[in-house]
Amino acid sequence: MAVQRVAVLGAGSWGTTFAKILADAGRDVTMWARREEIAAEIRDLHTNSSYLPDVRLPDRLTATADPAVALDGAEAVVLAVPSQRLRENLLAWKDLLPEDAILVSLAKGVELGTLKRMSEVVSDVTGVDPGDVVVVSGPNLAKEIARKQPAAAVLACADHDRAVAIQEASFNAYFRPYTNTDVVGCELGGACKNVIALSCGVAAGLGFGANTMATLITRGLAETARLGAALGADPLTFAGLAGVGDLVATCSSPLSRNRTFGERIGRGDSLEAARAAQGGQVAEGVSSCHSIRELALRLDVDMPITDAMYRVCHEGVDPGTVGAELLGRRQKHEWS
Amino acid sequence: MAVQRVAVLGAGSWGTTFAKILADAGRDVTMWARREEIAAEIRDLHTNSSYLPDVRLPDRLTATADPAVALDGAEAVVLAVPSQRLRENLLAWKDLLPEDAILVSLAKGVELGTLKRMSEVVSDVTGVDPGDVVVVSGPNLAKEIARKQPAAAVLACADHDRAVAIQEASFNAYFRPYTNTDVVGCELGGACKNVIALSCGVAAGLGFGANTMATLITRGLAETARLGAALGADPLTFAGLAGVGDLVATCSSPLSRNRTFGERIGRGDSLEAARAAQGGQVAEGVSSCHSIRELALRLDVDMPITDAMYRVCHEGVDPGTVGAELLGRRQKHEWS
Repeated sequence: MAVQRVAVLGAGSWGTTFAKILADAGRDVTMWARREEIAAEIRDLHTNSSYLPDVRLPDRLTATADPAVALDGAEAVVLAVPSQRLRENLLAWKDLLPEDAILVSLAKGVELGTLKRMSEVVSDVTGVDPGDVVVVSGPNLAKEIARKQPAAAVLACADHDRAVAIQEASFNAYFRPYTNTDVVGCELGGACKNVIALSCGVAAGLGFGANTMATLITRGLAETARLGAALGADPLTFAGLAGVGDLVATCSSPLSRNRTFGERIGRGDSLEAARAAQGGQVAEGVSSCHSIRELALRLDVDMPITDAMYRVCHEGVDPGTVGAELLGRRQKHEWS
Repeated sequence: MAVQRVAVLGAGSWGTTFAKILADAGRDVTMWARREEIAAEIRDLHTNSSYLPDVRLPDRLTATADPAVALDGAEAVVLAVPSQRLRENLLAWKDLLPEDAILVSLAKGVELGTLKRMSEVVSDVTGVDPGDVVVVSGPNLAKEIARKQPAAAVLACADHDRAVAIQEASFNAYFRPYTNTDVVGCELGGACKNVIALSCGVAAGLGFGANTMATLITRGLAETARLGAALGADPLTFAGLAGVGDLVATCSSPLSRNRTFGERIGRGDSLEAARAAQGGQVAEGVSSCHSIRELALRLDVDMPITDAMYRVCHEGVDPGTVGAELLGRRQKHEWS
């Protein structure tokens, strides 16, 4: 199942970085960008200055705004669009997907409305078995990896052979991917961490320090694991790179969009102002707290941090109020 | 088992902060400081400017350089001296300890030579049952709590009643302690995190970013859990406040002495220079990596990060060399 030709659909910072990883691992990579000017910049100047300023992209990486061109002959297709836009994009691409191409998802989230994980959305639209979708997760801040800082990642797929094929296609001097068969756990870890990172940002914006952030990370991991248990995930996953690893990287980095967005909200910015300050981009955690909360309600799982972020982002509740609630007085055993 | 009179032995930043927590919770607290000038400053000026600059201590907190005065009538005794000095201090105090006083350990480490945990050292010297010692752990950066930033903590004791007595004595508006019965797990979490924080500092000093730090935290937690399993700890502890919580707070804060010390080493300072830059204080992680490595060797547990820190701190190996090894090329399943 050797993979040489890869299409990467989406030219944001993580899509571009993953394309670079594959090209640096010796694959022939064609990216698809929605905007022609970004495709042209990647193709002709070998940069993507909107998303990865100061990074030079490999010569063997090219780009197009035509999905048919990107997908032609691809043995693997990397889906690198935001989670809430994955379905509409896939609907437009599905007749162009080469048969037998391995589908790889970089998206982290739970779909609003359907409450499906990304591999389920991929399966829904394409008819591919959800167990054949490869999910990428781990402590992977794009801007660091794009600068060739060493990083470990997880490639989760129920079909071990497909995970190994992508492992071989992406493994290089600075990117160390591990395989894993717990797709549910890896996807939930990735989706929930955006919400926890948002809460860490809010706490920082309210003036709290590292103790509070560490407490939010610990309790956030616990609520993620509770949701995972209800959906059949392996608890060990949350102790690994796609759980605590991804969460800590996202929460502690000033480069994280969710963290930065939360910080603005915590300092008193409105949602609109916070969005405007990040070039109109909404952090993934804002939609994720909505869909994950729905999923938790449906499964009767207690997720107080997710609930708090939902109330701040979607019901206009004051961040200081939910902060006081979350840190409120309770005297009990740690696990009761 | 109500506790009103407490002695806190040791006037470093955490000992002083814990004394403040108890006083703010309404207890009558007498601290012991080795140096008379520090005792006098706490008693007369209500400050401890060497360890907690800009923090005003409560009026009901007093101090002495005479351990007999501090211990007279104490219903709980908080041991707040560095781990490698706990035994010698306890030997000097043991005949002064009031019978039936609850012994509380703030020290985090494994004793060099004996390879004992702190509760075992306390039991060794005093004859108290190790199951009666209360261990304090969690994401507790002293300088944040001293500023009344809300924090959660774990009070571990095999005897639940003793943990509850200290919980009631320390619970206040900004300090939220949870009880736990896994003393072994809490003590190991606290000891190992200093070594992992040291490694995060070294990585930062070498120029690595948040992905690398998150990977070290994840793999560090895994090796701590392996050691814990060999010693009968509850794996759940490492996913909680005394595991991931304490680890993340220590590794991500610029206030952590272990982290700062490691950063200097990573930038190329000698051990002596790094020590001098921190006022002659050695980070706990430097001795802990030695004793924890011995314990791991004795129990045949693989602890690559601890081993790497031992080689850097005690065998003079170049940090860049061990960094490259730790981040070296391996293609495998995450848990194999």
